[in-house]
Amino acid sequence: MRSFHIPSLSAFLQESLQQKINQKTKPIGALGQLKIALQAGLIQNTLTPVLHHPHIVVFAADHGITEEGVSAYPSEVTYQMVLNFLSGGAAINVFCRQQGIQLLVADAGVKADFSPELPLIHAKVARGTQNFLREPAMTARQAIQAIERGSQITADIYAQGCNIIGFGEMGIGNTASASALMSRLGNLPIEQCTGRGTGLDDEQLTRKTAILAKALATHTTQNAFEALCAFGGFEIAMMCGAMLQAAESQMVVLVDGFIASAAFLVACSLYPTIKEYAVFCHQSGEQGHRRLLEVLGVSPLLNLQMRLGEGTGCALAYPLVEAAVAFLNEMASFESAGIAGKV
Amino acid sequence: MRSFHIPSLSAFLQESLQQKINQKTKPIGALGQLKIALQAGLIQNTLTPVLHHPHIVVFAADHGITEEGVSAYPSEVTYQMVLNFLSGGAAINVFCRQQGIQLLVADAGVKADFSPELPLIHAKVARGTQNFLREPAMTARQAIQAIERGSQITADIYAQGCNIIGFGEMGIGNTASASALMSRLGNLPIEQCTGRGTGLDDEQLTRKTAILAKALATHTTQNAFEALCAFGGFEIAMMCGAMLQAAESQMVVLVDGFIASAAFLVACSLYPTIKEYAVFCHQSGEQGHRRLLEVLGVSPLLNLQMRLGEGTGCALAYPLVEAAVAFLNEMASFESAGIAGKV
Repeated sequence: MRSFHIPSLSAFLQESLQQKINQKTKPIGALGQLKIALQAGLIQNTLTPVLHHPHIVVFAADHGITEEGVSAYPSEVTYQMVLNFLSGGAAINVFCRQQGIQLLVADAGVKADFSPELPLIHAKVARGTQNFLREPAMTARQAIQAIERGSQITADIYAQGCNIIGFGEMGIGNTASASALMSRLGNLPIEQCTGRGTGLDDEQLTRKTAILAKALATHTTQNAFEALCAFGGFEIAMMCGAMLQAAESQMVVLVDGFIASAAFLVACSLYPTIKEYAVFCHQSGEQGHRRLLEVLGVSPLLNLQMRLGEGTGCALAYPLVEAAVAFLNEMASFESAGIAGKV
Repeated sequence: MRSFHIPSLSAFLQESLQQKINQKTKPIGALGQLKIALQAGLIQNTLTPVLHHPHIVVFAADHGITEEGVSAYPSEVTYQMVLNFLSGGAAINVFCRQQGIQLLVADAGVKADFSPELPLIHAKVARGTQNFLREPAMTARQAIQAIERGSQITADIYAQGCNIIGFGEMGIGNTASASALMSRLGNLPIEQCTGRGTGLDDEQLTRKTAILAKALATHTTQNAFEALCAFGGFEIAMMCGAMLQAAESQMVVLVDGFIASAAFLVACSLYPTIKEYAVFCHQSGEQGHRRLLEVLGVSPLLNLQMRLGEGTGCALAYPLVEAAVAFLNEMASFESAGIAGKV
């Protein structure tokens, strides 16, 4: 696999950015989480960051583990939902239209063939992963292919002038994959990592947890890459590569919900500095995500108890990032507005 | 005082709206707090709610209690910030521009005179309230005047076709006023209601709390209106009237941070059904606001630890309300998209 160059952000501008923020006509420290303005400045290495051509890429893939009955919906829904994305009817379409975000959909590994003329990024690695209860989900070669294709997708978008990008996913069964990765890489008991996905009942949840415990016991892994091969999905691996490339290209990386955070966990295990480029958009209603954000040591912008996936958290948080940047560039200072300071 | 007609929302459409939401291409219940789409439908009494001409009105006023040194900033800042609003340099200007929200500024009771030609709603009740450590903040006549002027401001905006409105405030000293109202109307110890406002240190906070405890002991009140007279501010009273009129006009009412929630608490004590029309936008970083939202029994859309006031929480939450409504109107159903249901 190629390596990524993701430098730690220079503290050089930190003080000047903080000073610029402090001089704005508001109480000191009143900005709360909109201090992501400072992060955007550091990523772009400027006191006047600007967001250009926001994009969201939704990666879709199927999962062999669905054979074990870990999802409330059949695998076919992945394919059907991709068609729904392409005809503009899914939640992510609605939110991207509203926010002026360019939406792209990539077939990372759906278990069905799409007509080549569909307006889709055709990046299929294989028709779904293997059932990781029985064998590794993918080969090392497939994982590398997925990471490199993801990286190329981001590189192409970057070349068109985009500097802020979010990633979503669609893949029936992928909460199982994300839970296993979280358990292994976060060194956490599987019970803390497993949730109801798209709507399991108590009994089904117990069953899913038992299956994942067994799968985790089956595969020993030495590092994040091996864990990705053992338990990952093609959409997760491709998103991981896309995120790494985005950080290398000094883009702001919008991280969505549970699955996207699991992909980020893999990326961050490989290249810890990626965290400096990431904005955590949304805490999912999927149980396990709160814990995963704790493991990553981050606070998301939104907590709307949604379990929509698809990058919807990125789309909904985007205006907050825009607001933070606009604040930094457009707001008056105490001096320019002629306002008295603290007594 | 005139009375307001704020009917409880009919449950008539509840079931049809819920059914429409359930048929969307997403897991059942996955919408989380974006279920405000349902609330918007109920308020507008339709399965296809639409948001028209969003407005935010910032009410500004001064507070006699600042004589006691309860704020980190001098009173003059209220006047100076109004000028900053008018020249477009405050946080609320930046966020409203970004979101296409029409911003209006009203002088509810600033302790300085504005030139009549300034593009300001001239609604001054008096040049600041009285110091409520010594006497009631305002007379009953002044409180009624403030409520009625606020109501008229909303009625004028409604007449121009607006159906969603948020309210902000600017008033050095107004966290003291809001804390006293919260303590009295919520029947809570003042320590749970008092915070650092725009930036008090520990000693100043202790002093502010002691002053408020003394003021609360000074004024006995029989109801919310009397509490408003005793401890309120002109911006709080005017916002209260503006909120009541908005609900009467079947508008979606966006409630901002600590001060706005205190105004809402007064409105809600007078007309409890107003809560059905309200969307709680933001949990402020001001200590006391979390508790106030608990008292009201509501969950805000955002929790960004901001302490900006000015209606900024409304402006930042607005795109979420827009997203919820767009979701309801634009998203495909399982049937229309040809997607399989649960197994």
